Amino acid sequence: MATTVSDPIKVGIVGATGYTGVELLRLLAQHPNAEIVAVTSRQESGLPVADLFPSLRGHVDISFQSSDDAPLSDCDVVFFATPHGVAMSEARALTEQGVKVIDLAADFRLKDTEVFQQWYKMPHACPDILSESVYGLVEVNREKIRDANVVANPGCYPVTVITGLLPLLENGQKLIDTQHIIADCKSGVSGAGRTASQAILFSETSDNFRAYSVAGHRHLPEIKEQLQTIHGDPVGLTFVPHLVPMVRGMFASIYVRIMPEALDTDFQALFEKRYAGEYFIDVLPAGVLPETRSVRATNKVRIAVQRPGGGDQLVILVVQDNLVKGAAGQAVQNMNLMFGLAEHTGLQQVAIVP
Amino acid sequence: MATTVSDPIKVGIVGATGYTGVELLRLLAQHPNAEIVAVTSRQESGLPVADLFPSLRGHVDISFQSSDDAPLSDCDVVFFATPHGVAMSEARALTEQGVKVIDLAADFRLKDTEVFQQWYKMPHACPDILSESVYGLVEVNREKIRDANVVANPGCYPVTVITGLLPLLENGQKLIDTQHIIADCKSGVSGAGRTASQAILFSETSDNFRAYSVAGHRHLPEIKEQLQTIHGDPVGLTFVPHLVPMVRGMFASIYVRIMPEALDTDFQALFEKRYAGEYFIDVLPAGVLPETRSVRATNKVRIAVQRPGGGDQLVILVVQDNLVKGAAGQAVQNMNLMFGLAEHTGLQQVAIVP
Amino acid sequence: MATTVSDPIKVGIVGATGYTGVELLRLLAQHPNAEIVAVTSRQESGLPVADLFPSLRGHVDISFQSSDDAPLSDCDVVFFATPHGVAMSEARALTEQGVKVIDLAADFRLKDTEVFQQWYKMPHACPDILSESVYGLVEVNREKIRDANVVANPGCYPVTVITGLLPLLENGQKLIDTQHIIADCKSGVSGAGRTASQAILFSETSDNFRAYSVAGHRHLPEIKEQLQTIHGDPVGLTFVPHLVPMVRGMFASIYVRIMPEALDTDFQALFEKRYAGEYFIDVLPAGVLPETRSVRATNKVRIAVQRPGGGDQLVILVVQDNLVKGAAGQAVQNMNLMFGLAEHTGLQQVAIVP
Amino acid sequence: MATTVSDPIKVGIVGATGYTGVELLRLLAQHPNAEIVAVTSRQESGLPVADLFPSLRGHVDISFQSSDDAPLSDCDVVFFATPHGVAMSEARALTEQGVKVIDLAADFRLKDTEVFQQWYKMPHACPDILSESVYGLVEVNREKIRDANVVANPGCYPVTVITGLLPLLENGQKLIDTQHIIADCKSGVSGAGRTASQAILFSETSDNFRAYSVAGHRHLPEIKEQLQTIHGDPVGLTFVPHLVPMVRGMFASIYVRIMPEALDTDFQALFEKRYAGEYFIDVLPAGVLPETRSVRATNKVRIAVQRPGGGDQLVILVVQDNLVKGAAGQAVQNMNLMFGLAEHTGLQQVAIVP
Repeated sequence: MATTVSDPIKVGIVGATGYTGVELLRLLAQHPNAEIVAVTSRQESGLPVADLFPSLRGHVDISFQSSDDAPLSDCDVVFFATPHGVAMSEARALTEQGVKVIDLAADFRLKDTEVFQQWYKMPHACPDILSESVYGLVEVNREKIRDANVVANPGCYPVTVITGLLPLLENGQKLIDTQHIIADCKSGVSGAGRTASQAILFSETSDNFRAYSVAGHRHLPEIKEQLQTIHGDPVGLTFVPHLVPMVRGMFASIYVRIMPEALDTDFQALFEKRYAGEYFIDVLPAGVLPETRSVRATNKVRIAVQRPGGGDQLVILVVQDNLVKGAAGQAVQNMNLMFGLAEHTGLQQVAIVP
Repeated sequence: MATTVSDPIKVGIVGATGYTGVELLRLLAQHPNAEIVAVTSRQESGLPVADLFPSLRGHVDISFQSSDDAPLSDCDVVFFATPHGVAMSEARALTEQGVKVIDLAADFRLKDTEVFQQWYKMPHACPDILSESVYGLVEVNREKIRDANVVANPGCYPVTVITGLLPLLENGQKLIDTQHIIADCKSGVSGAGRTASQAILFSETSDNFRAYSVAGHRHLPEIKEQLQTIHGDPVGLTFVPHLVPMVRGMFASIYVRIMPEALDTDFQALFEKRYAGEYFIDVLPAGVLPETRSVRATNKVRIAVQRPGGGDQLVILVVQDNLVKGAAGQAVQNMNLMFGLAEHTGLQQVAIVP
Repeated sequence: MATTVSDPIKVGIVGATGYTGVELLRLLAQHPNAEIVAVTSRQESGLPVADLFPSLRGHVDISFQSSDDAPLSDCDVVFFATPHGVAMSEARALTEQGVKVIDLAADFRLKDTEVFQQWYKMPHACPDILSESVYGLVEVNREKIRDANVVANPGCYPVTVITGLLPLLENGQKLIDTQHIIADCKSGVSGAGRTASQAILFSETSDNFRAYSVAGHRHLPEIKEQLQTIHGDPVGLTFVPHLVPMVRGMFASIYVRIMPEALDTDFQALFEKRYAGEYFIDVLPAGVLPETRSVRATNKVRIAVQRPGGGDQLVILVVQDNLVKGAAGQAVQNMNLMFGLAEHTGLQQVAIVP
Repeated sequence: MATTVSDPIKVGIVGATGYTGVELLRLLAQHPNAEIVAVTSRQESGLPVADLFPSLRGHVDISFQSSDDAPLSDCDVVFFATPHGVAMSEARALTEQGVKVIDLAADFRLKDTEVFQQWYKMPHACPDILSESVYGLVEVNREKIRDANVVANPGCYPVTVITGLLPLLENGQKLIDTQHIIADCKSGVSGAGRTASQAILFSETSDNFRAYSVAGHRHLPEIKEQLQTIHGDPVGLTFVPHLVPMVRGMFASIYVRIMPEALDTDFQALFEKRYAGEYFIDVLPAGVLPETRSVRATNKVRIAVQRPGGGDQLVILVVQDNLVKGAAGQAVQNMNLMFGLAEHTGLQQVAIVP
């Protein structure tokens, strides 16, 4: 771990009462180069953080503050673990004072503000900052992230689907039918957040499996915009999310048809080569299938490339932890890059199995 | 099954949008002598019941009505599957028209109105009806229930604990130290209801185990009042409820100390004899331990009597399904009695295993 | 319920110690026209059935017998809930004595004995009986089943996938690209059976999601053979099964590409019309999505037809309970047909929700 | 973290294919002062460890060896994560070469070899080593452990129950009725291990709750022996273990009766004082209740002291992770002590919540 800083990075977290918030706190409390100096919550102002999250007793000893009271402008970086719409209204005040911003909500994920407004039902508050912000999927935008002032941390489904398709779509390759990509995705329930809601009660989701948002999910335009940027041309994507009775974990089964002229491609080798240098992306040996728990509570993505029957149908299976590589871990990875640290600083945990 | 009625019993359900409501609907939709004629909900008025609960598609074809529109006074019996406080405000209007009332909430469970007010934070609305109502635990009050106009369906914990202690306390017996009874109880999450609440989200309760309300739970005074009635004298009870990451099921581990003069008692025989004629109470053979799934979706209670090491400590293990014998099934059992049907009519389902 | 028999059907079950066995026992114990006269198990011979499955206490009062001792030849019908290979070795002796056979294993599912040998690693023991046996998916083969002596109860995945594709493939229709069908399937763990195995331990499967048998699953040739029979021509199918941390339930997400000339088809209407008279197949209204628990412990299939974005990609979502419509319930439905009973006799249970 | 060694501790693990084994690997792979030099397994000899446990890919790069081939005698310490009986047959050869031994099985837990033989059905192989070995519950035997050559890592239930009773029993205090202690314990399924067994299949344990081994569990004599050593006199204990449908976590609800002369005791203060200096024991503030997930994947114990109704019944609630403080974490804590490291070296992880 070669780091270039000596003083710890002063970190603020806005809205740390949800699952991405507590996961950020878990990771940052153990990060060797970060110091949590402010944690905000409107509702819980004054409450010790460890009273809300007893798992943090002995690790985090500050209290929630209101956004007004918290020393956010003294921070080096502020994470927004807030509902959509908050970060874009507060980003300018911070960036003008030299504070870097990493938004774990959707405010800076879609470059097209019309599409943003269509899916999030609010106009964008700062298109200028948006246009300078960087989409924080490190394996795609590493160099841009180093110098970014505002990073849009990707959605959990986009991380899973994009890492599964990246080697097939980069550089305008003609390997697959890009107009009929199918992503059958399965998410643990923590992806739906910590806000009380009948649909995600234990008694509604346990011992049950269902699809949702088949007609349209907010991550669909995000995935499509990113894939188009990667590929150079628009792609066609059918995206069906499902809810799995587990807390953490995301699994994508991606189906693409190989183009007739690409049938001789060694797709296993293509993926292995593309991700050879990536610490957090693990292409499994041929024939090995992934499971979500193998990345539980880590920042890893594991990918298997399958071609059942040897035909023209390629199946890519991708797993990650929706709260880590799909949220808080990815955010810390972005922070590490933005502050010149080794990318995996504080992110080398071994998965919890069983 | 010897029944004494020919026309079906006309049934109304007030507030059938929670788990006890949908469970009542499941049982009554299959009941050979009942016809559901009214199902009310303020919020869902106008919505077909089967739209809210797709499990009922093809079985229940009426819609929710407001309480004002629903033909409740035409019913033979009305079940209240409502929050506490509703049944006691509507019971008089119904009983005056000859409609029998079975309340699945707590309005008629506590005979002592001061204790009621202390625990439920509201004065009792109809002490006169309360005094005539019957506590609807059939195995205790069978004869009174036959003639009752208002029945208080017991709480789920009380059913479990009382059936586990009944043979030891009846008739002023001096078998155990009645001042130091311990009931360590474990409930599935459905016992907490279907209303959105953070504490019972899947991601909060799955892969987790905790105690709650140790300092005082509303079912404590109910259990104590009933045990005192059964025993003739007050009993001392320590009651600790815990939350289990499962949907249905309740398990009570009851610890009592045997009195020195009762050490020769054959407790297995005592329990078997007491419950010999009870269709819904199954005393397991000596050495066999119960599990909650063995009664899943049935109206059964299973009891094991254990005396580890042969000493003076007796351990009684009781299982039931909190939504059936602990709620809707018990209510139907009460209805059967009140209308002269065989007690187990419509309640003979086999448990769902696995 | 118009039945044509007065005496109960005498039923035998060979190998009733697994999950399909106990589910058969649950359904048959409540069946108004069936009497369980023999239940066999080599290992458990002599043990009361209810000692192995306490859920059956009070409902099933016979003991396991060895196959030699059990009065199987006195039965009207014998169900085989055995490992693959048993039914085909015992079928002839039974059918020669006029006993009908319903096999819940795979012995009679594949008409092509070479394919059978390839996937099940054993030669077929009675090709002649196989050639006269009927594939027992009632909604496809109703009339043939009525007169069959040997019925092959379908696999759980095949039931799900075939019912989801039937309206699109029957009669040689040219609605979809039949060479690139994708079935992304998810199964509860009970589908893997009750035999001890590390891979399906609680601690291995809980809070986890994974794919399995992607390179080839035994249900793949079964589905393909049936779809070819239905369609008249071979179909191309990519079939990826996944394991869901739930006990019961199966979910298929089927992706097909609509042919250019069929883009104007009203697929919702097509499915509704095809299944209009089917008691056990419920086509959900447009826009409603299925969940597995809505059919838990019932013999129902629920299907949603979706066309996200209105393009050329059709998504069919199918749910069923793998132990009921995918196994024991289907078997009882077959029995009902074979003995002239109404198809839904003893199969009208309401799903257990929550 | 003040450490006194510069070279890493060379560590061997015998029998690392179970859950305590993989948990040891997780902790040791991240330990700053340990190097895993040998991992043995008879069955998996030759297999890369990370092939069996994909969660370790990128963290552990050695292969399983047979015990004969593995360089165990070159190790500084060898952990036995084996079935009972292995460590005691191999301990002498190791200790004679100066290798320290930490046994995670039961071989050295019971000082009384007759009791050992009664419960484990085998004679003890090395009573002399046993008599010099130390029971490795650090909070009880810290000083002895520093100099021990053989440490018996405690059972998971004993850790939970003993830490919950220690402040009440030490030094022959007369605070409670020591003859009637009740420990109602609940364990996650991982406590039953990774060996295939029908009773712990997902479909047997999910959505289910049951008691087991009520008549007698192997941890009962272990707890009683330790409590007697702590208290100076024998104690009477009723111990009822239950199985919870969760992977990790252990919860003990301990019920003791306060002696009349001790009713004025401030038990909250007593516990806080006793554990004030203990890094891994967290006495919760009065009124706060513990939950197992708050210690998931950590070496912490959390304890609540409750006195419902203010009477003579004390309720102590204890949580820990059965695989960490109840097994592998405790073992590493012992290793740290034995090698002069700070006790919490490599054990400061934050719990995984949700």
